[in-house]
Amino acid sequence: RYGYFGMDKPEVARMMLCNLSGCLTDGQMYMSAQGLEMISVNTRDWMGIRILKREDMAVVVISSPDDPVPKALEEKFRQAGCEIIHSENKLEDVERLMKEKGLDWKEVAYMGNDESDVECLNLAGLSAVPQDAPVVALNATKYVCHCAAGRGAVREFAEHILLLKKKAKYQMEQDHIAGNAS
Amino acid sequence: RYGYFGMDKPEVARMMLCNLSGCLTDGQMYMSAQGLEMISVNTRDWMGIRILKREDMAVVVISSPDDPVPKALEEKFRQAGCEIIHSENKLEDVERLMKEKGLDWKEVAYMGNDESDVECLNLAGLSAVPQDAPVVALNATKYVCHCAAGRGAVREFAEHILLLKKKAKYQMEQDHIAGNAS
Amino acid sequence: RYGYFGMDKPEVARMMLCNLSGCLTDGQMYMSAQGLEMISVNTRDWMGIRILKREDMAVVVISSPDDPVPKALEEKFRQAGCEIIHSENKLEDVERLMKEKGLDWKEVAYMGNDESDVECLNLAGLSAVPQDAPVVALNATKYVCHCAAGRGAVREFAEHILLLKKKAKYQMEQDHIAGNAS
Amino acid sequence: RYGYFGMDKPEVARMMLCNLSGCLTDGQMYMSAQGLEMISVNTRDWMGIRILKREDMAVVVISSPDDPVPKALEEKFRQAGCEIIHSENKLEDVERLMKEKGLDWKEVAYMGNDESDVECLNLAGLSAVPQDAPVVALNATKYVCHCAAGRGAVREFAEHILLLKKKAKYQMEQDHIAGNAS
Repeated sequence: RYGYFGMDKPEVARMMLCNLSGCLTDGQMYMSAQGLEMISVNTRDWMGIRILKREDMAVVVISSPDDPVPKALEEKFRQAGCEIIHSENKLEDVERLMKEKGLDWKEVAYMGNDESDVECLNLAGLSAVPQDAPVVALNATKYVCHCAAGRGAVREFAEHILLLKKKAKYQMEQDHIAGNAS
Repeated sequence: RYGYFGMDKPEVARMMLCNLSGCLTDGQMYMSAQGLEMISVNTRDWMGIRILKREDMAVVVISSPDDPVPKALEEKFRQAGCEIIHSENKLEDVERLMKEKGLDWKEVAYMGNDESDVECLNLAGLSAVPQDAPVVALNATKYVCHCAAGRGAVREFAEHILLLKKKAKYQMEQDHIAGNAS
Repeated sequence: RYGYFGMDKPEVARMMLCNLSGCLTDGQMYMSAQGLEMISVNTRDWMGIRILKREDMAVVVISSPDDPVPKALEEKFRQAGCEIIHSENKLEDVERLMKEKGLDWKEVAYMGNDESDVECLNLAGLSAVPQDAPVVALNATKYVCHCAAGRGAVREFAEHILLLKKKAKYQMEQDHIAGNAS
Repeated sequence: RYGYFGMDKPEVARMMLCNLSGCLTDGQMYMSAQGLEMISVNTRDWMGIRILKREDMAVVVISSPDDPVPKALEEKFRQAGCEIIHSENKLEDVERLMKEKGLDWKEVAYMGNDESDVECLNLAGLSAVPQDAPVVALNATKYVCHCAAGRGAVREFAEHILLLKKKAKYQMEQDHIAGNAS
């Protein structure tokens, strides 16, 4: 009972991962007969990513081999300090990233939206899916967003992460005070 | 009462057909003054088709003469093992396909969304329409999806089909056990 | 009481007019930095127009000077037998069309969505606005669609018109029988 | 009690400001792999701006450095008599405009949708956010629209502003009558 030493530090997320298609986008792929392919991203979600970066979190956007990723978007992510990875096996790739950064699953916040995300949704300390996700994803997640994919779900999850982070910090301070007082 | 012989085998769907426009898409056709035409498809529905293919079902996408079908989309369907047919008389074309594959209407799962689908919706063993279909289609279908067209309706129908398939398989096993036990 | 002569013939709509932007489209105008302008139309509404043409109604699509009208769309309307007029004063233009066709306001079905439609909504025998229309249009219309603009409102109005037409026809037959019987 | 002199003139909004992205648009940014970037604006909101201009209000559209602003849209705003400013610090820029026009915060109607709008939402005499705005904006605003961003929120705010203006005018007239009568 001398300061905070010897007590469990409350776990907080240090890395957030989310899918491009179906989390950051609404999953719609626009296609023209002429070969044009388009996706759309919402400014609200974009702000969510910035807010996480401001708090020094690692942010990783996962694209699948099917997704066409606009160069302009990739560039934007890079400028905002996000990593963007193309993954065919999400569990494998996330664990590789965790190893690189020396992180534990408890420190990972994961947002997914379908079958291929189930393992990560189960393992991550924090996990979320958009409100309109298929049943298989809804069953695996810890948090279901009120917002739909591509309409604020990533922003909502970002705020959820930071709220828990603040709570953990506050708890640490309270424990510290209690420790000193005893 | 010796094994399963002599009993009716529960019918399961072996072929799923759905419209491109109004089932796989939300029915929106985007048009520019410059002649660009675009449609959009959702990854969730796309996964639904993949799930059906994984279970060895035949999947047929029906486009009508009005629809502009992006080459890239057609290619994607082909790569996923789907047939894509351009049909002006759906009943005729579906019955031709059934003949080719030696299938019965009970083995057909049909998703439609308008007048031209009414006969097939009535005849198919399983049939569905998106939640936002016009009255004429709602009146003819066996199942009304909770999801709207182009926003998960095809995925939902795919899961519905596989659930019934699993139930039928389970029933067959139970009957088998009961048959052996007697 | 000798047959139907001498009795008021129940009025039925013979011409349907609707706005392109805000009735047939959802009012969204997509614009790229490069100068591309796009609008979108739903197949369901498109079928509504076809259903009306099948019943020999005149169908007129009204575009305003602001709207970019894709050539492909204009061509499609023409092929379906619709007129498309560019109007700055709707009341004037509708009355000119009525004169040309020898029609009365009672025979006009009008769908609008904003201030500039108020007079026509008030005068037409049948009038409708999409569910998401501004208050000024909601206050002037006779029928408010359950569907939103560009998401089935025109189709719904088309079905509403034909239902009333059938009812009127049935009434005429009943009156005829009653007339003969007396 | 001689006429209106010496009494507080009820404050009415003389300038309306709103964000392009997230107020006039739904915040969606459409992007193609080929580098096309698109946004969309609704005719209903566009009419809202025209209605305000008809009542001689100054209308200012604020774009942020991230937004791609279609030239065609910028041109349209200019033709309608709106200013369009690119702002990195909204509070600073709005106060500069107020100074130029000799306006007080009470005479400003501000519509925002995120963190960077909080100060202006708090200070403006009238303020609003779209129905689907993030919590941080909802907490700062005076009025929450029933319409979502890019789907009528600007139009709704415009009507709200004019309604209050009419009330204020009516109040002034009533006070005038009361003053003369005493």
